[in-house]
Amino acid sequence: MNQFNWDSSFLVDFDLKTGKSETAESSKRTLSQMKDMYHDVQAAEEILKNEDPVIYEWHELGCPERAGDLAFGTTILYPGKVGSEYFMTKGHFHTILETAEVYYMLDGEGFMVMENPEGDTIEMPLKKGEVVYVPRRYAHRTVNTGDKPLRTFYVFGADAGHDYGTIETKGYHKMIVDEDGKPAVVDNPNWK
Amino acid sequence: MNQFNWDSSFLVDFDLKTGKSETAESSKRTLSQMKDMYHDVQAAEEILKNEDPVIYEWHELGCPERAGDLAFGTTILYPGKVGSEYFMTKGHFHTILETAEVYYMLDGEGFMVMENPEGDTIEMPLKKGEVVYVPRRYAHRTVNTGDKPLRTFYVFGADAGHDYGTIETKGYHKMIVDEDGKPAVVDNPNWK
Ligand SMILES: [Mn+2]
Ligand SMILES: [Mn+2]
Repeated sequence: MNQFNWDSSFLVDFDLKTGKSETAESSKRTLSQMKDMYHDVQAAEEILKNEDPVIYEWHELGCPERAGDLAFGTTILYPGKVGSEYFMTKGHFHTILETAEVYYMLDGEGFMVMENPEGDTIEMPLKKGEVVYVPRRYAHRTVNTGDKPLRTFYVFGADAGHDYGTIETKGYHKMIVDEDGKPAVVDNPNWK
Repeated sequence: MNQFNWDSSFLVDFDLKTGKSETAESSKRTLSQMKDMYHDVQAAEEILKNEDPVIYEWHELGCPERAGDLAFGTTILYPGKVGSEYFMTKGHFHTILETAEVYYMLDGEGFMVMENPEGDTIEMPLKKGEVVYVPRRYAHRTVNTGDKPLRTFYVFGADAGHDYGTIETKGYHKMIVDEDGKPAVVDNPNWK
């Protein structure tokens, strides 16, 4: 994975339109790897009878988790739904909770869904050419409410760390669902 | 300046083609503010008899200098030369030396010119759709060797701080000059 020397400078291509890279490796997350994160587990299992769609892929560079370094890359979140719930990323807190993240929207439309440990929630609408600031202390997940891929360029402090477990166990307070063809923010009835 | 609440989420527009923003404020640096940084001071003074050109402008957001936050924005570096030396930014070390920076090239061509306190130098060629990683410990300056504006999106740790004085006093080891219509990296004869 780590072909880059983070103590000297290097270049990486990220297409400004597609977010794709010829240099950085791509990882994929499929529905079977996160089906329990959707509200309608039965709808997920129906889909999985026929296929295991890629929900999102991301390009990363193996940045060492050192203070002062910055990890960066792109994420491509595909359009689709599980039941009425739009395709989304797993979402995570940073292990060092007091660390922010910057997402630059290259294409698509959707939401950045955030919540802090106190249960404050934020849903920011996303569109091409805007940066969304994910503040310190907030778990974050992107949701694609459009009909084409949502593409972002992200940067975060390399030592921030990722805590996926809290979201896997407790879920999010809010979910983004299709209501009569339009995205709506609703309470997650499964939230523990 | 600071219209943003860095403890909650916010959106800022940065045009993916031009780097311009309708939300973020723009600051400008003109030749008169940095004429002593060019090798050919006489050429700078010739230009200044007629005009004081904007060398670059940048959009920033007044990020508080707190650990865990990320400052970001865009820089637009105009094309031109002072004598044979291409237009460039002032360049700086970070006050917390062990902090990196990420630049995403939105348009244009040029170089990221870097050096560390030990005198190691790096000149990275820049082109649209590439990210250049400025490693920890390296002073950094962009140079526009093309005939249109060089446009970058940047992110750095908000508490990194800026040390412009070292470069103002000592200069850079290397400079990028036009040699027969092509950019060349040469030693800076004024380096102290
Ligand atoms: Mn994150
Ligand atoms: Mn910097």
